[in-house]
Amino acid sequence: MDIQHIEDAAIRLQGQIRTTPLLESPLLNARLQRRLLVKAECLQITGSFKFRGAFSALSTLTEAERDRGVIAYSSGNHAQGVAFAAHQLGIPATIVMPDDAPKMKLANTQAYGARVVTYRRGVDSREALGVELAERQQLRLIKPYDEPLVIAGQGTVGLEIATQALALGINKATVLTCCGGGGLTAGIAVALATQAPKFRVIPCEPDHFDDTARSLAGAERVRNASDTGSICDAIDTPEPGELTLPILRQYCPFGLTASDAEVVQAMRIAFEYFKLVVEPGGAIALACALREDHRQTLGDDPIIVTASGGNVDTALFLSLIHDA
Amino acid sequence: MDIQHIEDAAIRLQGQIRTTPLLESPLLNARLQRRLLVKAECLQITGSFKFRGAFSALSTLTEAERDRGVIAYSSGNHAQGVAFAAHQLGIPATIVMPDDAPKMKLANTQAYGARVVTYRRGVDSREALGVELAERQQLRLIKPYDEPLVIAGQGTVGLEIATQALALGINKATVLTCCGGGGLTAGIAVALATQAPKFRVIPCEPDHFDDTARSLAGAERVRNASDTGSICDAIDTPEPGELTLPILRQYCPFGLTASDAEVVQAMRIAFEYFKLVVEPGGAIALACALREDHRQTLGDDPIIVTASGGNVDTALFLSLIHDA
Repeated sequence: MDIQHIEDAAIRLQGQIRTTPLLESPLLNARLQRRLLVKAECLQITGSFKFRGAFSALSTLTEAERDRGVIAYSSGNHAQGVAFAAHQLGIPATIVMPDDAPKMKLANTQAYGARVVTYRRGVDSREALGVELAERQQLRLIKPYDEPLVIAGQGTVGLEIATQALALGINKATVLTCCGGGGLTAGIAVALATQAPKFRVIPCEPDHFDDTARSLAGAERVRNASDTGSICDAIDTPEPGELTLPILRQYCPFGLTASDAEVVQAMRIAFEYFKLVVEPGGAIALACALREDHRQTLGDDPIIVTASGGNVDTALFLSLIHDA
Repeated sequence: MDIQHIEDAAIRLQGQIRTTPLLESPLLNARLQRRLLVKAECLQITGSFKFRGAFSALSTLTEAERDRGVIAYSSGNHAQGVAFAAHQLGIPATIVMPDDAPKMKLANTQAYGARVVTYRRGVDSREALGVELAERQQLRLIKPYDEPLVIAGQGTVGLEIATQALALGINKATVLTCCGGGGLTAGIAVALATQAPKFRVIPCEPDHFDDTARSLAGAERVRNASDTGSICDAIDTPEPGELTLPILRQYCPFGLTASDAEVVQAMRIAFEYFKLVVEPGGAIALACALREDHRQTLGDDPIIVTASGGNVDTALFLSLIHDA
């Protein structure tokens, strides 16, 4: 995986994705006493960055592969990304989703025209189910992060961050990413290594789901104790990817975490200061940036966070913010 | 007021404002069976388009005027725009606001460094108070819409809409604007008249506060029956501006309205489909676009709406959406 893969993906994505804004709030900057910028991928088509990786991968398929169709397993954002990319390219799509996925994610995936197959989270193995369906029907499996074409697509977020931050006069920064399997983090890290080499990339995860932080801290790839229990449904992957972890080891010195309560506070800050709807898993990087102890750890550079998705059920959003 | 004034304003605003995205939702388009695009000015610095007009005006002041300071009266968005533009330019600012303005608007205006003077809405005349303070302290009054430099600044929204829509393959459209005093509508109409002459501009107002629609329908400039009672606090101006109405008469064939309940539904649609926080007054154009009878009136062209602000108190937003 190098910058050329990402630049090639950017060409495939031209005219398909939105260049999302890099937002900044003078009032929040004053409160935090430093520049904080939000890369608003919740405004991306399908409501998260996942459409980038999905279209990057699907747009390279052969005619025969397109005819047979694709399959993906996802808690909901990769699902919607693959479903809409497939729709745009005229490819039949089957999506394997947990039956407790947010209603909006299930409904939208179907609305984009995909066939949705559900499984029981924590009981069935979505990987096994995905592989079985793929083999039986000769579908091309589009993995959510352990797929170079997907990582390259997510890396286009990094290209945009570099261009936009440099235009705002920022040439040294800490970039906090929302990290599940690590596709977004790996892609951004590779992109910034050449496009903005003074930008450091730090993956952020929920407390108790810090498989990436713990894997980075040691020599082994470690798993989370549980598959369920975080409000950050988009990023509760069991362990870092096989392809992504070596990239993260190369570029990311360590990982950070925040609690569910801090995630909800971050969602409220995104709402009030940035006028953005951010889902829990998309707010973990902002939650880490808002923790004073983490800011002290990170030093004085401007902080850029990904707000990586906004697909949250309205009723849940209202109750979380109301009770915060 | 012609395109040159707006292009001059765009130069003054360079590097100060954000180019806000023009967003589109494939799922909402499918539901409405036409393209609907949202110009997300709620993402502008200070949370509304008003910063454009404010900075446009303040940046032309002489050294002596800057030293004496500026004054503005506003229900909150012009207040924040002037306060932050003054802060950026090192100009002292006094803002006259109704004492029942949204708390966020009052707090932010002070946080940007302005002195806030409150008045009782429906009892005191903010215009009289503004003029009196301005004369007594020799402050330059920055009117919210009856000021060519402000209209020119708001017109830069129109320049961006033209560029962005044409890039998306749209060369004929109906542009629905959120209309209070008419500064945004007039500026956009003048900009589009040369930059995208097949774009028609239609001002949108709350039911019972349709002073602009009724003024456009007749020869007289007419007032609203009441100054208070709409949830759209940002646009409950008593009558169209003296400078703006002649411009609107030239370019806008008629106006549209929607109810408070339809505004709240539009806020929910903005939340769910566009991941945007839009305040009531900033959602009136989307509310009109969502009304099927209005869409039939407007014909088949793509509809572009301004989501002109996002400064809504969190508790109010939650209760409005919850009860919708």
